[in-house]
Amino acid sequence: MTEFTSEIRETVLRSATKEVVIARNRPFCIIGERINPTGRRIFQEQLRAGDLSAIDRDVAAQVAGGANVLDINMGVPLTDEADLLVRAIQRVQDLTDLPVCIDSSVLEALEAGLRVYQGRALVNSVTAEDERLAAVLPLVKKYDAAVIALPNDEEEIPMGADRRIELVAKIVEVATTEYGIPIEDIVIDPLAMPIGADTGVVVTTMETARRIRDTWGLNLTCGASNVSFGMPARHVLNATYLPMAMAHGMTSAIMDARTPAVVESVRAADLLLGNDEWGGSWIASHRAKQAAAAAVP
Amino acid sequence: MTEFTSEIRETVLRSATKEVVIARNRPFCIIGERINPTGRRIFQEQLRAGDLSAIDRDVAAQVAGGANVLDINMGVPLTDEADLLVRAIQRVQDLTDLPVCIDSSVLEALEAGLRVYQGRALVNSVTAEDERLAAVLPLVKKYDAAVIALPNDEEEIPMGADRRIELVAKIVEVATTEYGIPIEDIVIDPLAMPIGADTGVVVTTMETARRIRDTWGLNLTCGASNVSFGMPARHVLNATYLPMAMAHGMTSAIMDARTPAVVESVRAADLLLGNDEWGGSWIASHRAKQAAAAAVP
Repeated sequence: MTEFTSEIRETVLRSATKEVVIARNRPFCIIGERINPTGRRIFQEQLRAGDLSAIDRDVAAQVAGGANVLDINMGVPLTDEADLLVRAIQRVQDLTDLPVCIDSSVLEALEAGLRVYQGRALVNSVTAEDERLAAVLPLVKKYDAAVIALPNDEEEIPMGADRRIELVAKIVEVATTEYGIPIEDIVIDPLAMPIGADTGVVVTTMETARRIRDTWGLNLTCGASNVSFGMPARHVLNATYLPMAMAHGMTSAIMDARTPAVVESVRAADLLLGNDEWGGSWIASHRAKQAAAAAVP
Repeated sequence: MTEFTSEIRETVLRSATKEVVIARNRPFCIIGERINPTGRRIFQEQLRAGDLSAIDRDVAAQVAGGANVLDINMGVPLTDEADLLVRAIQRVQDLTDLPVCIDSSVLEALEAGLRVYQGRALVNSVTAEDERLAAVLPLVKKYDAAVIALPNDEEEIPMGADRRIELVAKIVEVATTEYGIPIEDIVIDPLAMPIGADTGVVVTTMETARRIRDTWGLNLTCGASNVSFGMPARHVLNATYLPMAMAHGMTSAIMDARTPAVVESVRAADLLLGNDEWGGSWIASHRAKQAAAAAVP
């Protein structure tokens, strides 16, 4: 088995006016993750009071940092998540033309979000659990979305690559044959766990990613900062992890685009993987930085 | 074919008092590359005048930056390279207990260096050319050294992985059967070319590296900064390239240890590849940095 032999799959996402394609021969897709109240007490209180204005700053920062898609999560305890998510999606679509990744574990919220979203969304996420597949995939099909799928089932998050591959096979089979979802609209998260818990997890994730790429050609995503959880110098670890994962088939990540070192490492890896023709983007971005530095009085 | 299936090979290098082992399950081996007059006019003039004192500063900087082995090259036009190399090796061995990589294309210099070197050196380098193999390998055997081998022949530097693999097979066959050199003492440089010349070169190098790892389990090395030649922001490209290469079997690199961003990415990749047990080195290094920062008045 040699590298890059399987078919290239294009996952097409859209806003009302802009199209973003996730594929192995394209620049990496940065899914900006900051529009999310998890762990942000003040933002949670604002959302509970119906004040969504803090979103504007987050959108601006993710766009400025180079996000290609925006993840929107409105999971605030004791609120009407569907209502909040609908308002957040509409607000974001007023602010930017980037496509959106609708992030909720609440089915009603997911459907309400998909209903108002203008374009072709990415749904975050479904697992290999029968109940979740049966609940989420009909929505993905009905609203012509793409979907992030995690290869864990009712029992466990499998630690070995073999079991994860079995669960990916199950997801692909169910999604394509039972629900008629095109295979290129399935984006797999191969489940990168914190390196601090077990120093073998990244090797397992890379092997899983490569096998998924070589078997189905599927696009892959991950939470970019999971692996560094609990460790010092997390930005360095994230900036190191992503290029390694990209070299094994990772084509997108849910990440905070406000961290220049991590975004820069992703763009460097685009160039090194042959997805930045003639180095055009790399050179232009460096010139822009030089010009900005020279403009400082 | 799954990852990490082939045998782990240990390339053992030694100074008079210290042993360094290059292997896939060990931290990456940084071969400090600065003790080299190439492109350094003042250093060249000093060496021509018999003044080797500038070496002391270079050794100190490479050691401080975290080098595990030191590359010594004394290729100054119109000098007695053998004499210079002997004096440089002796001077370096007085200054540090790190093992040495003896870097010369001049056979007489190589042999003179090997003769005075105290320990087990790494020879840089041999190619797959018949004449070079016949000239260099007897010295490697006679002085019980390890050797860096490049899979190019008289004709060309092959651009494809298949031809490079053929040439590695030839090198392994000749070195082990004709000269009795143990296979673990052969370290392959899979020939990473500048990304600016052809954006496919890194993918080819990674594929070549992985196939060498999976076929023979050989240790691998590279010139870490070759890929970024001619590009802006070279440190970022080098810091991105090495972890990608490490994930495909690269176990050492000839690099300038004075660049903290590149050294840090290598140590992050050690952790992510499971070669820094419990993250002990990563955490200790971060604490040392914090302590140093706190100590600034």
